[in-house]
Amino acid sequence: MKIAVIGATGTIGTEVANKLQSMGHDVVRVGSKSGDYQLDITSLEQIKRFYEDNPALDAVVSAAGGASFKKLENLEPEDNQIAINSKLLGQINLVLIGQHYLNENGSFTLTSGVMMDDPIEFGSSAAMANGGIASFVKSASIELKNNLRINNVSPNVITESMDKYGDFFKGFTSVSLSKVANAYIKSVEGKQTGETYKVYD
Amino acid sequence: MKIAVIGATGTIGTEVANKLQSMGHDVVRVGSKSGDYQLDITSLEQIKRFYEDNPALDAVVSAAGGASFKKLENLEPEDNQIAINSKLLGQINLVLIGQHYLNENGSFTLTSGVMMDDPIEFGSSAAMANGGIASFVKSASIELKNNLRINNVSPNVITESMDKYGDFFKGFTSVSLSKVANAYIKSVEGKQTGETYKVYD
Repeated sequence: MKIAVIGATGTIGTEVANKLQSMGHDVVRVGSKSGDYQLDITSLEQIKRFYEDNPALDAVVSAAGGASFKKLENLEPEDNQIAINSKLLGQINLVLIGQHYLNENGSFTLTSGVMMDDPIEFGSSAAMANGGIASFVKSASIELKNNLRINNVSPNVITESMDKYGDFFKGFTSVSLSKVANAYIKSVEGKQTGETYKVYD
Repeated sequence: MKIAVIGATGTIGTEVANKLQSMGHDVVRVGSKSGDYQLDITSLEQIKRFYEDNPALDAVVSAAGGASFKKLENLEPEDNQIAINSKLLGQINLVLIGQHYLNENGSFTLTSGVMMDDPIEFGSSAAMANGGIASFVKSASIELKNNLRINNVSPNVITESMDKYGDFFKGFTSVSLSKVANAYIKSVEGKQTGETYKVYD
């Protein structure tokens, strides 16, 4: 399969791209500033150009998207725009535009996160985007044409990132990067659609 | 209690406002074009003015917010802006701004909908907003100060609205308006927080 991994320079994206490549797939590593191709998912024009520049994809994996992390009492309405434009609409627009480009029987795999189910301080904006992704994926799955599939992976905090994010996730039992990456492989290689794979333990 | 019902001229809002009033509460009926007070929840300035004009609220109930209903293949990225600005961020901004105005021990009750869990054709954009609301509510509940609470009501299609929406919800077994309104009463009068009351059957 020809597979684009968006966010391929991040922790999860790198592992997923490596696994897919080791399985023999033709992987396009897409980053915001490096990788085989550069794409800012908050730009509709760049998403359109990305699909035109990378025709005949069989799968798109998105492990991209940011959010503001702030205490709720300091969260200003404007702070949500990062999560809205990037994690929520950025990922969704990969689908809305990509549905017209992907090969038949292709798939989209998006990413949410554990905070939508098990909240953390500072995490309201990210939780909002994560919950929106999970419900969009379920709904979009019943309408996609050309036998396209769509799933979502919702990872817990990753063991390999605990030095960076551990302070936000005190008391969480992390999961291994390899286990999280497997959920993406299952989404790409499996036949299910509309699923949220919760890799929480 | 002094309670503002936003979307008080809609089917759900009218019933909730009537029930709360019959229980002896002081209800401010807020509509976009009618009611005791007019408020467009997509406007940050109007939300701020609403809280300044209606001080010392004990509860805010939102049964407001729209979305585009389109086939996924025709859903353009721009179409999501209605759900984002209204159902998702409009309701969330009632909380982000209102947290600095409500009386101690006050509560917010927001509204999502069954499509986040049980999707319908044309419903992807609404599902996105609904899922975002449910996860935001859960996350915000752990951070609200002043003993403020927040819950979400997720209604199925309402029996009294089946003539209007029945074609979108074929095969759904509707729930009564009275039962849906009860979930809002439970949110306002109860002590729970972070809940999504799913009134699906």
